[in-house]
Amino acid sequence: METTRAAIARVAARQFLEAGYGPTTMRGIAAELGIDPSLVIHHFKSKENLLLSILGPTPTVLDALDGPRETLGRRILEALLVSVGEGSLRFFAILTQVSDSEAVRARLREVFDEALIGPLRARLPHPDADLRARLAAAALRGLLYSIAIVEDDALTADGMPALIDRYAPAVQALLD
Amino acid sequence: METTRAAIARVAARQFLEAGYGPTTMRGIAAELGIDPSLVIHHFKSKENLLLSILGPTPTVLDALDGPRETLGRRILEALLVSVGEGSLRFFAILTQVSDSEAVRARLREVFDEALIGPLRARLPHPDADLRARLAAAALRGLLYSIAIVEDDALTADGMPALIDRYAPAVQALLD
Repeated sequence: METTRAAIARVAARQFLEAGYGPTTMRGIAAELGIDPSLVIHHFKSKENLLLSILGPTPTVLDALDGPRETLGRRILEALLVSVGEGSLRFFAILTQVSDSEAVRARLREVFDEALIGPLRARLPHPDADLRARLAAAALRGLLYSIAIVEDDALTADGMPALIDRYAPAVQALLD
Repeated sequence: METTRAAIARVAARQFLEAGYGPTTMRGIAAELGIDPSLVIHHFKSKENLLLSILGPTPTVLDALDGPRETLGRRILEALLVSVGEGSLRFFAILTQVSDSEAVRARLREVFDEALIGPLRARLPHPDADLRARLAAAALRGLLYSIAIVEDDALTADGMPALIDRYAPAVQALLD
């Protein structure tokens, strides 16, 4: 049977995705479940903590790291754009929108460090592997930002594979 | 003499920069000026509208467009990182954090269209100049995002000129 905690997390995730961060309230989540709001507070303390708690494991680009280094940028881009579905993009946008909180900014750093920068740094032979990985992460964040927040639909008009073809040289240039 | 409207805009800009969007209130702005809050509402309607109204003219990369095309990426990057001072980066972060509003997302699109994508598209000879300009904008946004929101200090640790050296090849790869 689903625990109360799991039920709260499930309903919260749906409400955050559908309504955004601002309009979602712990009271509204409790109401949908027919439970007392104090239970939501008991399990998750605050709305911000609830948001940070329900984020799933970060999609990792680990599998993309196998293979020739000349096409590493492309494989990472594919792994990122394919593994982050619509839901993950939306959570990226929500986290970004709540980033006036230091806890959220810390999480944004952590997410990219764990999912991307750490594995990539370990894969690169260069003495400045860390900086290269961070530069590549900046370029990748820019694409996520442009799709999920600026909503520049011209970028995705020809489909994800076409976008990957066009953007891969930029990521690769930062790794070479 | 400074008009009431100009005084409100000046104090609002300072409060937004210092306290962030959330903690800044129209009431607090009125209090600092010793005027009635209804005057702030009269001039600017809402806090969101106040934020959108006080943004200065977008720094443009127009001057960077003159010169050889092989180094265009680098010159645009310089123009952007040099012309956006600390204040502009902070406003970029604030606008991004308020981007669950469609009006703010529209402004974010507009800012980049006017400052970067339009001029750049006009400079490129390729039939797909628009897409190239948008891809370059995505990469540039990624760098602003990584500096101003994620606060990845490792990127700027060696100074802006060093960062420009490292990131320029990515921007150039999207234009070539």
